Amino acid sequence: MKYAIGVDFGTESGRAVLVEVGTGHEVATAVYAYANGVIDERLPGTGVPLTPDWALQDPEDYLRTLQVAIPRVLQDAGASPQDVIGVGIDFTACTMLPVRSDGTPLCMLAPWRGEPHAWVKLWKHHAAQPEADEINRVAREMGQAWLDRYGGKISSEWFFSKSLQILSEAPEIYAAADRLIEAADWVVWQLTGVETRNSCTAGYKALWSKREGFPPQGYFGSLHPGFATVVETKMSRDIRSVGERAGGLTPQAAAWTSLMPGTAVAVANVDAHVAVPAATVTDVGRMVMIMGTSICHMVLGREEHIVPGMCGCVEDGIIPGFFGYEAGQSCVGDHFAWFVENCVPARLEREAAEQGTDLHALLERKAAALEPGESGLLALDWWNGNRSVLVDVDLSGVLLGATLATRPEEIYRALIEATAFGTRVIVETFQQNGVPIHELVACGGLPEKNRLLMQIFADVTGLPIRVSSSKQTPALGSAMFGAVAAGARSGGYDTIYDAAQRMARLKDEAFLPDPKRHAAYSDLFADYLRLHDYFGRGENDVLKRLKRWRAEVRGRAEAVHA
Amino acid sequence: MKYAIGVDFGTESGRAVLVEVGTGHEVATAVYAYANGVIDERLPGTGVPLTPDWALQDPEDYLRTLQVAIPRVLQDAGASPQDVIGVGIDFTACTMLPVRSDGTPLCMLAPWRGEPHAWVKLWKHHAAQPEADEINRVAREMGQAWLDRYGGKISSEWFFSKSLQILSEAPEIYAAADRLIEAADWVVWQLTGVETRNSCTAGYKALWSKREGFPPQGYFGSLHPGFATVVETKMSRDIRSVGERAGGLTPQAAAWTSLMPGTAVAVANVDAHVAVPAATVTDVGRMVMIMGTSICHMVLGREEHIVPGMCGCVEDGIIPGFFGYEAGQSCVGDHFAWFVENCVPARLEREAAEQGTDLHALLERKAAALEPGESGLLALDWWNGNRSVLVDVDLSGVLLGATLATRPEEIYRALIEATAFGTRVIVETFQQNGVPIHELVACGGLPEKNRLLMQIFADVTGLPIRVSSSKQTPALGSAMFGAVAAGARSGGYDTIYDAAQRMARLKDEAFLPDPKRHAAYSDLFADYLRLHDYFGRGENDVLKRLKRWRAEVRGRAEAVHA
Repeated sequence: MKYAIGVDFGTESGRAVLVEVGTGHEVATAVYAYANGVIDERLPGTGVPLTPDWALQDPEDYLRTLQVAIPRVLQDAGASPQDVIGVGIDFTACTMLPVRSDGTPLCMLAPWRGEPHAWVKLWKHHAAQPEADEINRVAREMGQAWLDRYGGKISSEWFFSKSLQILSEAPEIYAAADRLIEAADWVVWQLTGVETRNSCTAGYKALWSKREGFPPQGYFGSLHPGFATVVETKMSRDIRSVGERAGGLTPQAAAWTSLMPGTAVAVANVDAHVAVPAATVTDVGRMVMIMGTSICHMVLGREEHIVPGMCGCVEDGIIPGFFGYEAGQSCVGDHFAWFVENCVPARLEREAAEQGTDLHALLERKAAALEPGESGLLALDWWNGNRSVLVDVDLSGVLLGATLATRPEEIYRALIEATAFGTRVIVETFQQNGVPIHELVACGGLPEKNRLLMQIFADVTGLPIRVSSSKQTPALGSAMFGAVAAGARSGGYDTIYDAAQRMARLKDEAFLPDPKRHAAYSDLFADYLRLHDYFGRGENDVLKRLKRWRAEVRGRAEAVHA
Repeated sequence: MKYAIGVDFGTESGRAVLVEVGTGHEVATAVYAYANGVIDERLPGTGVPLTPDWALQDPEDYLRTLQVAIPRVLQDAGASPQDVIGVGIDFTACTMLPVRSDGTPLCMLAPWRGEPHAWVKLWKHHAAQPEADEINRVAREMGQAWLDRYGGKISSEWFFSKSLQILSEAPEIYAAADRLIEAADWVVWQLTGVETRNSCTAGYKALWSKREGFPPQGYFGSLHPGFATVVETKMSRDIRSVGERAGGLTPQAAAWTSLMPGTAVAVANVDAHVAVPAATVTDVGRMVMIMGTSICHMVLGREEHIVPGMCGCVEDGIIPGFFGYEAGQSCVGDHFAWFVENCVPARLEREAAEQGTDLHALLERKAAALEPGESGLLALDWWNGNRSVLVDVDLSGVLLGATLATRPEEIYRALIEATAFGTRVIVETFQQNGVPIHELVACGGLPEKNRLLMQIFADVTGLPIRVSSSKQTPALGSAMFGAVAAGARSGGYDTIYDAAQRMARLKDEAFLPDPKRHAAYSDLFADYLRLHDYFGRGENDVLKRLKRWRAEVRGRAEAVHA
């Protein structure tokens, strides 16, 4: 029996899964909760305070994940290290850090421990918005063609926004950093002793493309004179395709993990992207939705198309040989959590308690009794802005149709319907721009938790939905890439296609669209689209005015208190 | 010491107040809760079921109010019947019933007790919508000029809608009814033995005007051949102005009430309208708001103007010598009750309990800490349709600007602001159409309960708001009209102006608009108006489509269950 191990580095914890290479059976799982979690108030040790929008992590937590979780899955499974043929990892992204030439993170060195910019900037570090604005402005002015691959706008979360923030605010850190690197690639470096850069984060987060490489020095120099050579001095132009072998475990890494030195390690990957083959998708036509607090939408194409509002299109970014398209909805599970936290009356809490269930389940049951249109409600799902077609964080949520007879479960259902309409906009935008989609494949936490939501997504989009049989699809995907890094000669696979064939699996049950409900939802969707354009495309910018006024009032209040 | 008694007939109970004529001091109050309350499921006694939208009352409850509440205030005050110089009553309207020529309600006669149409139709009986639609359609087709006095549309709640429903659905009741009469006038008939008709209900609910009388026979005949002579055969063309003496107490009524036979009784009146002089308003320029579940807006004018969306303009309808204008908002207190019932999470309920307060008070305190615009929210206050400028029951509520940071108290404040914007629309519509308003005077339950709401109304409208010092302004107003019916020679007053001078009073405190907040709200109001017109005037009829789809789905569901 041969095994591969996948390690999924999340926001709060890291998770290792031991998988049978021949079958994809998940034998053992172990989770390590990061000791320092998300660092957003004070630096560990020094207590240096952080301003709002900052979100850091401690790289020691990544090493401890390897040291704790991998030995535990071996032990729980009673597996021999000799039978583990490969390791793959996936990560949140862009999560990046400054390191020395030997790979030592600056924040691990005494002189820099009190300097926020020396730490890992987590994906949801949002303090680099001014840098992102500048990157977008200059790119537009210089007519940089790569901007189109990212829906016309890059995010404050991405690699160069964060790097430029380091240079602008802490030039001494920027100077001391021999390398700026994705945490994903840094962990692979720690495992193998070799610095590699993966095509997924390079493509989706660092503006790299297989055909054109990185943006030119002249562009980076226009952002900041010291930034012109950022790629040459701090990064690498040697980008490795996902699915390749990065190297073998060093003796030290073998000691950390209880695995054999030389065990194959795959090039690093990103959590959402690595889920695609683990959800059986290795060809065009089926869109994968990683559904949790938000949704990532992933679809493969044979050609490069410019699709409005997508997050990125990267050749070899998901599966070698395909253009990988990514889009996203910024508020899905978050939506329902907000609603349950803020808008559900005590009488329903009591009813749930009496029935021995939770509020989500009670609301789902009540909402499931309604037909499309029966609530009389229609919502725009922009509680956290819009990061799909409109790419506009300044949009906000809208609810129409409330009456004195409106009940909480009706609002709850309207919010589900709104997120489904949001996904339909994404699906149709891909379809209209040359990227076919005929089936949806779901993974992540939501499909396990909310069957009503899955059925509404099927009814609204008119597409069948299959669900990944793994409850930890990214970790499974990483194990699959670990098996590919080992190769068939070592008992693994030569390609991710072969691995997906044997290791990835869907549940038998599908959520099929009901034609009548789909027709009813298409009427509602026409109104959703009209309001989407009215409020989202400049006809009435009231949502932006409301956000601006809110920010102005809060700004004045802070000025008074300061 | 001379007294007058006002009796306010409400929806669930009748209230008698004994008032000192010289000072307006309210000496004693007694409330009688109607034994049969609102009859909307089954007829008392026979158990005959009612269909939805029906709302009836039992006229016996009105007599019991006289028999119970008036003796009780006399007793509580230790007042002598000889010192009570006059009685006035006010009523909900249009609340009407079919009676015999001697005043006996048909529903009190054995043969008719099981016939729903024989009972009192309460103001909120909404089953006459088809008749109202027909009345409006025919009036438009025939170019009936009176339609303009009612904002272009009359309501299913009004007198001829209800009368025509009787004729259409129960012609034998219509035939058996010697009279169709407002309950207000019927009670005065019971007190005095004389049938009178008051100018307030005749004008606001029965299409009468001082100059033109009722619509012509030809119009009524076009609605239904048997309806041509409804005024001649079932009503009266002898309309008495509010403020007149209807008659003196009969011996029987004196026995019921423990008052002296011959005590002056005023012509009947309507609760909202009688509140105007009781709130000190007997001249132009100050708008009275009766604020409860909904708001009635009352203002006096020297001339007749056609104001879009007002409920009615009636000469002598409120105060003799003036045109009385009425407008309304259909959802104010109801709004907040709905919100607290359906949208406030258990954690706030616990917080309120810990602080020993109720949810409304807790929400008010939290919402009061916010500045205009700080919530980032904007709402359209149409949870119960719009009965002011747009006069459209098929509109519904809208909320914009929600984010994951939105808190319940912010939504609560946005709903208050929305109702204030709704009142500003009414105020400005009056002002733009020749009816000046420079101050607001509030009465009813809300001003006592919610200071934040009052301040927001002042800040949004930019007008100072004074508050009636009486907590039972309509009953006080009725007592004032009772004192006027008695006249100065009997220790009362000759005019309602004199009575208001001495008996009506405002609290010293005023809610004054803050110029900065008014300016901020004017920015928000511009967006409110734009959305008001976008959703309310046909540019995007999505709210109506949502209502129609909801009705269709519910209709299908009922068909399946039937």
